[in-house]
Amino acid sequence: MNASTLAARILSRRDLQFLLHEWLEIAELGSRPRYSGQSADLYDDVLELAERLATDRFAPHNRSSDVDEPRLEDGRVILEPAIGEALAAYSEASLMGMSIDEEFGGMQLPLVLTTAVNAWFHAANTSTTAYAMLTTAAANMLIACGSEPQVKRWVPPLVAGRFFGTMCLSEPQAGSSLADITTRAEPGEDGCHRLFGTKMWISGAEHEMAENIVHMVLARLAGAPAGVKGISLFAVPRYLLDEDGAIGERNDLVLAGLNHKMGFRGTVNGVLSLGEGAHQPKGAPGAIGYLIGEPNQGLTYMFRMMNEARIGVGVAAAAVGYTGYLKSLQYARERLQGRSGPQRDPSSPQVPIIAHADVRRMLLAQKAYVEGALALVLYCGRLHDDTVSLEDPAERRAAESLLEILTPIAKSWPAQWCLAANSLAIQVHGGYGYSREYDVEQHYRDNRLNPIHEGTHGIQAADLLGRKVIRGEGGNFKQLSARMLRTIARAEETGGEARSLARALRLAVERLEMVTAGILSNGDRDAALANATPYLEATGHIVIAWLWLEQFLATGHGEGSFYEGKRQAARFFVRQELPKVEPLLDLIADLDRTALDMPDDWF
Amino acid sequence: MNASTLAARILSRRDLQFLLHEWLEIAELGSRPRYSGQSADLYDDVLELAERLATDRFAPHNRSSDVDEPRLEDGRVILEPAIGEALAAYSEASLMGMSIDEEFGGMQLPLVLTTAVNAWFHAANTSTTAYAMLTTAAANMLIACGSEPQVKRWVPPLVAGRFFGTMCLSEPQAGSSLADITTRAEPGEDGCHRLFGTKMWISGAEHEMAENIVHMVLARLAGAPAGVKGISLFAVPRYLLDEDGAIGERNDLVLAGLNHKMGFRGTVNGVLSLGEGAHQPKGAPGAIGYLIGEPNQGLTYMFRMMNEARIGVGVAAAAVGYTGYLKSLQYARERLQGRSGPQRDPSSPQVPIIAHADVRRMLLAQKAYVEGALALVLYCGRLHDDTVSLEDPAERRAAESLLEILTPIAKSWPAQWCLAANSLAIQVHGGYGYSREYDVEQHYRDNRLNPIHEGTHGIQAADLLGRKVIRGEGGNFKQLSARMLRTIARAEETGGEARSLARALRLAVERLEMVTAGILSNGDRDAALANATPYLEATGHIVIAWLWLEQFLATGHGEGSFYEGKRQAARFFVRQELPKVEPLLDLIADLDRTALDMPDDWF
Repeated sequence: MNASTLAARILSRRDLQFLLHEWLEIAELGSRPRYSGQSADLYDDVLELAERLATDRFAPHNRSSDVDEPRLEDGRVILEPAIGEALAAYSEASLMGMSIDEEFGGMQLPLVLTTAVNAWFHAANTSTTAYAMLTTAAANMLIACGSEPQVKRWVPPLVAGRFFGTMCLSEPQAGSSLADITTRAEPGEDGCHRLFGTKMWISGAEHEMAENIVHMVLARLAGAPAGVKGISLFAVPRYLLDEDGAIGERNDLVLAGLNHKMGFRGTVNGVLSLGEGAHQPKGAPGAIGYLIGEPNQGLTYMFRMMNEARIGVGVAAAAVGYTGYLKSLQYARERLQGRSGPQRDPSSPQVPIIAHADVRRMLLAQKAYVEGALALVLYCGRLHDDTVSLEDPAERRAAESLLEILTPIAKSWPAQWCLAANSLAIQVHGGYGYSREYDVEQHYRDNRLNPIHEGTHGIQAADLLGRKVIRGEGGNFKQLSARMLRTIARAEETGGEARSLARALRLAVERLEMVTAGILSNGDRDAALANATPYLEATGHIVIAWLWLEQFLATGHGEGSFYEGKRQAARFFVRQELPKVEPLLDLIADLDRTALDMPDDWF
Repeated sequence: MNASTLAARILSRRDLQFLLHEWLEIAELGSRPRYSGQSADLYDDVLELAERLATDRFAPHNRSSDVDEPRLEDGRVILEPAIGEALAAYSEASLMGMSIDEEFGGMQLPLVLTTAVNAWFHAANTSTTAYAMLTTAAANMLIACGSEPQVKRWVPPLVAGRFFGTMCLSEPQAGSSLADITTRAEPGEDGCHRLFGTKMWISGAEHEMAENIVHMVLARLAGAPAGVKGISLFAVPRYLLDEDGAIGERNDLVLAGLNHKMGFRGTVNGVLSLGEGAHQPKGAPGAIGYLIGEPNQGLTYMFRMMNEARIGVGVAAAAVGYTGYLKSLQYARERLQGRSGPQRDPSSPQVPIIAHADVRRMLLAQKAYVEGALALVLYCGRLHDDTVSLEDPAERRAAESLLEILTPIAKSWPAQWCLAANSLAIQVHGGYGYSREYDVEQHYRDNRLNPIHEGTHGIQAADLLGRKVIRGEGGNFKQLSARMLRTIARAEETGGEARSLARALRLAVERLEMVTAGILSNGDRDAALANATPYLEATGHIVIAWLWLEQFLATGHGEGSFYEGKRQAARFFVRQELPKVEPLLDLIADLDRTALDMPDDWF
């Protein structure tokens, strides 16, 4: 049981059991046609496999792949070998395709489960895990948008982990503003295209771990409309394939340079130059790419996948936060320091620091953040499963609508608060937490990426308020508030303490409803959007408070320390965190213009 | 003017002018006997010197000393040479002794000025600056507590920068809990002592940059009382001195190992072993140390210095936050990305990102944090000067009392919020901010130390609530609230917008007074202290809001973008930050026990 003992420190098996089985009742999914034949035992077996692989193959090189970060030698990316070995084990265990339909060689498991599986791997080593996430995402995108021959050609080697995938969106002059990408695609021979341009921030851009790399690239066709309506999607492989699918010529794309990051270092990240003539596939310069789907629909396709990627960021953030929490908890139980309570006699033995109230506060805050974040991303996984497995189209649509509004929150809330958890984990460790001899400083650096990539925090805020609330004309929002009120009503019926927690949440939800109605009826959209970030953060906190009430209810009459701890964390969140929402909502209610009205030269 | 142009980017000369001259009116100090003959011109000359040295000698190696961090080779610490060169230039400019009395070879400048001087150096390179801070602190401690021969022997070379100093408090088994240190001091020959033990987290512990290093070491004499009442202070030099003060034998202390940190890497930090017999000074093992002051008074002496060191941490945090703000501001003005306002046509040119409301929000928040933090530490410097230069003993005592209660805030608030500013600076940069090609990621890593060293955030909270408020029986607190109310009254008299800002602050101060009175009258000290951190954070925010009101008033009828920006930042803080206080104070008012009541096994 050595592996499990170790693993118990990177994530909590007990909590996953609670969230998946006792709260989200995932075994029930097996009764739906899409997941027929899948049982709770199967799900638990997959989770156990994930725990073992994450612990044995991913965690051990987490620090070393941070220290020996990727380097470029003679045009080749040198990575720590353990990264490729871990990913090979992951592929061999069929996990690369765990969420992909059986007809494409996958396991067709529900996303709620694969989210939990991924949490194990992110907790162990988030940068190694990123390669797998990108590969699955590329396969998913091809399945959703590619032609049948394209799917046949590219998906099986991706699902098998023989090929890896990437997403190529940003460019040096166009980071968050995809309207301004300039990579161009020219019609080439045999219906394919030749691409020319520079892609920036490409994770997994180049390495030797797979037989091939399939880049999913956004580019413009000649004469395409300006802006986001003129973007097309192309599959651009590192190596072309022969007719029979065997590796052929090198394509015309090269890594122009590596980015050296604060953390997340095991994931190679760099600038990709397409069509510079470094290679001459089929005798000419230009990176050969294959148009996916219709011209000028690239961003629509990308956005279809983006939701999954964004929830994926939330999973990573939650898992990295969670593992930092568990490590600081273990440290706090072992580290002797000072005295506590009435017994302050310096000749008495020192106590473990968990005995100090302020340390307990930092641990309980972490617990409330990371378990709340994990609950959120699992809930989103469960919703996704509903959107593809419920019989009733209206119910599917309701799940979709709710998932749409929760996605920017699932991306941003864990990124913000599990980073805060990692900061508290450092603080619990004191000076040791700041030293590279302990894990938590790396978790903090790794997690700092999550509010940036896949759409920054500010982009998520604009997505929530601008796209989901305002352009959705309140439809998505109503879905969300109705669900929250349903839980509140259930808690009120339950009575006792559940009722009193529900009372605080009801006030917050009703305030949020009022503020949202105010935004929808008010004409000053600029002032509203200037407060998109406080709106995102307030809504996020209310959503997490709701999910803590859900967890509180799910503990039922459960006795023992696990359930007691859950209930105390729920109380903590409602008492200490939920009230932070009020001043944020005040800003939006007032359509505060302080930042909006600050001219450049006043800074 | 090249240096000045560059320097304008690491700190704001204009803001320092405003804070020092227009707000704190430091020229007035020249009329006091202690500073007689000192003029505004002298102060400005020193500031200009600091700006030039910081820009030319400290800033250029900030990144390289992070990359090439200190290493141990054959028992010697290898540092980047630029660190020693910069510190030599600092010493040559007489800055090592700028705050030290003239009779000891210093410049006897007011602390409010030297705080501003240090801010330049921290903004440029906080880890190189740390060596100077420690050296000045050691000299100050010797002057305050040492015998005349000790002062004569050790202070001049420290002030000249020929010797460097350190502080040796922590031990591996005793981090924050100094009651548990075990380093022992045995009586030795000629009235000196022999020390045996291990000291941890020693910044500047070992290097070759100075002729000698003087360690200020806490240790126990045989038979000393248990706990903090049995700690004595010793000066333990790396090399003994001959009778005539020349460098003599190597003392028996060695660097047992280096700590490898997340940031702050240019400051060598390690474990110091005393008395292991690696050297045999005067023919015997044991590190020779000289008792400073009375036996068993070491912690009292240390605490006398601690206040200065804690404000020093605040200065460093404020300066590192400030420089990150200025860099992200420059980036936001230059980086083109997307479109803003009604003009969203994708064929129109991209705008600088400062045009986006959310970016402006992130810049204005940074401005409010870093300028607020700088104001706080300068205010504390000014108070310190009052304690040593006011004629009236009652006024001195009032300044001391106020400084006592502000010290934990000056240490913790900048550390917390200027780190938050650095995080926003990264966020403004997007992906670039996360890469090591830009400065802001290093500032963020460097600043993460500040909530840990010189007493963690939690220790500051316990100091504020436990020592200053509860044990001070409200005396210090009354001093603080009276000062705040005085400013509020002045703002109310001023009328107009000042009055409306003052109204919000008055409500917050009155609430804080009520909550504080509640703590003092309530018997449940454990529950109160369990909420020491929210109390610290709430008080900190109220203090900064007060200092923003002070700044608002100091702009007077000033016109132009500098004054407009100050006023807007004041509005921002009062509107967007001050309201965060309310939910924190609610917790203390309720004596919330959620964390206190969480038993270990519920986690």
